[in-house]
Formats: sequence, C-alpha cells, structure tokens
Amino acid sequence: MPLDSGASIGPVSVAYTTCGTLNADASNAILVCHALTGDHYVVGRHPVTAKPGWWELAVGPGLAIDTDRYFVICSNVLGGCMGTTGPKEVDPATGKPYGMGFPVITIGDMVRLQKLLIDHLGIERLFCVIGGSMGAMQALQWAVDYPECVYGAIPIAGAARHSAQNIAFHEVGRQAIMADPDWHQGDYLLHDKRPTGGLSVARMAAHITYLSETALHRKFGRNLQDRKALGFGFDADFQVESYLRHQGFTFVDRFDANSYLYITRAMDYFDLPARHGGRLQDCFRVDGRATPVRFCLISFSSDWLFPTRESRKIVHALNAVAANVSSVEIESDKGHDSFLLDEPQFHAVLSGFLEGLAEHRGLKAVG
Amino acid sequence: MPLDSGASIGPVSVAYTTCGTLNADASNAILVCHALTGDHYVVGRHPVTAKPGWWELAVGPGLAIDTDRYFVICSNVLGGCMGTTGPKEVDPATGKPYGMGFPVITIGDMVRLQKLLIDHLGIERLFCVIGGSMGAMQALQWAVDYPECVYGAIPIAGAARHSAQNIAFHEVGRQAIMADPDWHQGDYLLHDKRPTGGLSVARMAAHITYLSETALHRKFGRNLQDRKALGFGFDADFQVESYLRHQGFTFVDRFDANSYLYITRAMDYFDLPARHGGRLQDCFRVDGRATPVRFCLISFSSDWLFPTRESRKIVHALNAVAANVSSVEIESDKGHDSFLLDEPQFHAVLSGFLEGLAEHRGLKAVG
Repeated sequence: MPLDSGASIGPVSVAYTTCGTLNADASNAILVCHALTGDHYVVGRHPVTAKPGWWELAVGPGLAIDTDRYFVICSNVLGGCMGTTGPKEVDPATGKPYGMGFPVITIGDMVRLQKLLIDHLGIERLFCVIGGSMGAMQALQWAVDYPECVYGAIPIAGAARHSAQNIAFHEVGRQAIMADPDWHQGDYLLHDKRPTGGLSVARMAAHITYLSETALHRKFGRNLQDRKALGFGFDADFQVESYLRHQGFTFVDRFDANSYLYITRAMDYFDLPARHGGRLQDCFRVDGRATPVRFCLISFSSDWLFPTRESRKIVHALNAVAANVSSVEIESDKGHDSFLLDEPQFHAVLSGFLEGLAEHRGLKAVG
Repeated sequence: MPLDSGASIGPVSVAYTTCGTLNADASNAILVCHALTGDHYVVGRHPVTAKPGWWELAVGPGLAIDTDRYFVICSNVLGGCMGTTGPKEVDPATGKPYGMGFPVITIGDMVRLQKLLIDHLGIERLFCVIGGSMGAMQALQWAVDYPECVYGAIPIAGAARHSAQNIAFHEVGRQAIMADPDWHQGDYLLHDKRPTGGLSVARMAAHITYLSETALHRKFGRNLQDRKALGFGFDADFQVESYLRHQGFTFVDRFDANSYLYITRAMDYFDLPARHGGRLQDCFRVDGRATPVRFCLISFSSDWLFPTRESRKIVHALNAVAANVSSVEIESDKGHDSFLLDEPQFHAVLSGFLEGLAEHRGLKAVG
C-alpha cells in the first residue's frame, strides 16, 4: 500500500468489527472512525480492559447509530496496536517488530486503508462516515478523498488542521515517551521492556485536555483523596491527582508507546487545505462543483482542544461552495470528551441527522 | 523557622537583591515576589543564563516600578534553587543535600521567610507587595497574614486557591520528573545525576499553559522548522515543537528538579479561604473590620491558567468586607505570561496604582 510519505507498506492487516446487517444493496453501511487512543471495539467487551466498547452509548439497537437499521463498521487505524498493522507488529522484511522503522503515516493513509476494507466488504458507497476528534479528521478526509463513496459525513469535535497548541501538547507526550530509557529508541520490545513511565505521563497530560476546567472542578475541585487533611508529601493528596495517575497507569496496559508516537504525528500532520493550495473550500469541490457529501458538523461548547470555531471554519468553507451542511454546537460543560459521554442532546442530533439522511437516500429499515 | 506542616527548618539562608534606595523612614519598600520558576534576579544579568532579569520591563529607573523612587526587594523563595534554602542545599543534620528530606512547604512558609528578611532589613511596613502568578499568591498571603505590615498589594494573574486543572498540570510535571530514573527518589545529586529528561518534559507541559492558543497560533501556526516540507519523521518538523524543546532543554540548566516538585506542591496547597472557615471574605477581616491593605487586582483576558474570574472572586470578597480594592482586566492575547511581557497598558496600570498609593501614603520622591 502506497503512503503519503512516498514510502509503501505491505502486507497490511486490518482488525475490525461490524454490527448490524448489511442490506441487499449495501447502502446502509456506517463507518465509525475511532480517536487517538480508541480501537475497533466500538461495542462489546474490550479484550484487554474487559470494559464495554467505547461508544456503547451511541451505537446499538435503538440507539442514535441504530444497529437494527444500519450496518456499522469500525476498524483499528493503520499504526494502531489492537490488530491492525502498526509499529508493534513484525516487519516481514526484518522478522522483528517495526518499532521506529515503521513509516510515518497520515490520516490520509489511515483512510486509504479503510477504503480497501470497504472495497473488500463489497460496499461501493458508505451511507455515512462518523467520528469524533481524530475520527472527525478521518471523516473529513473520506469526504475529501472519496466524495463519491460517502453519502454523508459527521465530523464531531474536529478541525480541518491541527492547531499549534495541539501539536505542542502532542510533542510533550512524545518527548515524555522518548525520554524514558525503557523506550530504547523504539526497540523496547526487543529489550523486553516497555516505556510505561513516559507513556503514562503522555496520557496524563493529554487527558487534561480532553476535559474542561468546569468538569474537573465539578468532579474533583480540591477534594482530598482518602484523607481528611493535607498530607504534606508527594502522594496523591487530591482526588484529581489520584484520578490522573489512574488514567496514566491503566492506559499503558492497553496501548503501545510507539503507536502513540505515530498516531499523534499523523494528527499533527493533518492539514486539509495544505494539499489544496491553502484554501479549505477547494477541498470540497469535485470537478468544479460542490461535493455531493452531506455534512453534519458537531462541536461542544466547552471543548477547548477542538473548539467550535474550528468546526465553523469547515462550515464556512462548505457554505462557500454551496455544499449541503448542517452544524450544531452542543451545550455541554464536559469538554472534548463529551462525544464519548451521556449527552442526550448530542445523541438526538446524531440520530436526527441520520434519519434525514436515510430518508433522502431512500433507505428502508432492515427486516 | 516553624512551617505550616508542623515541621521546622533551620538555619535558613535567603538570597535576595535590592535596587533603588530605602528612604529615611523605610516607607518606600516594594517587595516583588517571583513566580514558580523565577528567582531574585528581577533585574540585572542572570548568573546562569546570562539573560536580563525577568522583570526588566517593569522594574527600573523611570519604569512602572520606578527604582528612582522605590526601594525594590526580591528574594528567592524558600524551596528555591538560586541561593535560598531548598532541597538541593545541604541539610546540616545529615551533611547531604536535603533532596526529598526537605519538608513540604507552603506559600505561607515562603512569606514567613520573606517577613524575616523584611524585619532584617529594618522595614516595618512594606509600601507594596507585588507579584504575578505564584507571586500573586505570595502578595495575597502577605496581605492576609501581615495586614499591618503591607500598605498596598498588587496580585497579578493569580487566584485565592489553586484550581483542580492547575493541580492536574502540576501533577503531570511531577510525575514526569519522578518517572525519570535519574531522579533516584530525589537523591540524584548523590548519584551525580540530574533528571533532565523528566524536568524538561515538565517544563514543556507547563509552558503551553503559560501561553494562549492565539499567541501560539500567531507565533508559530503550523510553520515548519528549517524545512520546506513535512519531514515524515520525529524531528521537530514544526516551529512550535522546536520552540518547546528549547524551552525544556534550557530550563534544566537553571532549575533544580526537586525545587520544581516542592514549589509546585506549595502552589497546589494554596487555598486562602480553607484556613478561614472556607469563606474568602473572612481572610480580609482584621479584628472584625476590613483589612487596611489597599489592593489592585490585575488579570489578563487570554490567561486560561489564572483567568479573570479567579481575580474577580477575590475582588468580590474584598468588596464584601468593604476593603479598598481596584481591579483591571488587561486586554491581551498573550496568555498568562503577559505580566512578563511588553504590555504597555499593564505597565500603565501598575505605575498608576503605585502613584495613587504613594500619594495616599504621603510618599515623597527620593532625592
């Protein structure tokens, strides 16, 4: 498979799950794209953590993304660590894990691989592609690279390019991993080590950005952890410290440090207008006309990582070419991670847009 | 010296600088309090970095804090690493560096030591105490603990208590340091090592919070560093990465990792109302009446680390006891660090308030 860097990679494995039933004309397929640390366990018990799927609140029978009606596909991204080819898999050329010999990939490469999967499943055109955060980047990339293969797209809490501040936070995480001596220049698997300290710090820093100040304050404030007074030490005095440490410690059990490097890099590189002369609206033209893809842009009022103004830029660009676009800012104080949480208004918007899309597409309920 | 934790420490050294001339009745002394990573080199060449003092823009002859008129004192805080007793100094009890044997300290302890210095200098009452960020915490603590010894106080970009989000960012930095094997449980000096990797990551994460998204975007955007196209690697492709790495690398030359742990902890513990029954306004009562200290609270519109709403809480509490208070939000898109930068409106507010304070105090110009 060719890559945006000019390199190529192969053979490539893809881990994916599906739920629901593909209808006779293969017109009810929804591709769900996962975020940075997500995977294809969108529903069902996760094999490592034994926790429910990451989007059980939105995907299932009778839910916003109704598996009684739609055929839902979710695949682990290229560069991931849950089964799809990534830095921890064995490079057939060397017989050893790729490590830092894995090629640098882009969101475009991830989507190229998803397109191969969709072809393999016999689906010519996705009914919809949906994703939050890095998933939104993939949804946008699908619409730009394969406009005839996507009927609708729902980029949630995303942006057309990664901001300087977001690159900065990613760089902190990468430096934390690479500063860990157990990283061994990426060859930790050969040394039977894992840079858990660095990866844990990377996760902690990132996790703060997924929440809002209000959510942190409401959840923890300055509450003390298992004690009645300040401990005058460096144990986790405050609940927020204990929570963050837990986020870091549990993350390293399920995620590969090199995957974290490669996937954050892919996000940093994401810049839709850059490949279209710097004009975002030109991304949404197909043969001089507006893209046929029908968009719904969703953002959350308290998301400071991918704020509403980033979604608005996309809406403005789509309006400039007279494309079909809806957009909603959901009032929520839960920050960037709102799309993973119980946000009824958000789920209502999701199902409402899909409903309209289905009607327009002439999609009948399955069975 | 007794400490808030119940422990005590001694003997204690204090490194400080002064500029200007103390007048005959010692009524023109301004104590400038430094921030987390600052020191007493408020003006003049820094002995380690050879850079100008950290507040050369505000302190000097004819400047907002006019050393032709005022006698300016700045001391390195307790727990610091530029001469005042801190974890890297030798514990007389063991003959080895304190390391993690240093007692956990508070902002109150820092101020207690400053009070001893002021006594030593023969100053009964400071004309004003001024500081930004952690310096604002010290200015507030001075006003609360020694209301009769402070004529005016200017807490800049501060808060009455450290927020959950800010504790979280500090905890990430501490975990980065403590995850570095060269930290050696704090005994790195005995091993002739320094946890530069961890300290550098801590600084990088913190540095992002000192800026605003707008400032980062304006300064760097997605500009590439010394290259015309993406490198498809993990070198610093983007200027913002290169800048952050530089911030991290240079910081470790001038700062001690254990000091970083202790001083961030002191900030996390800062909670003025907690010691006054949870009511902030009760901090500002002296014998049932309003504090005699005259306050000027300054914040910056783009500061998301210590946002204006935190300063407002203090203003409301001061108003509730009918204390003398002015407050200003400076329009700036440069984030928390604005108080260190060339912000003419900010400097005008500083000098204006001091001018009024001097008039009220009947302070004559020196010489």
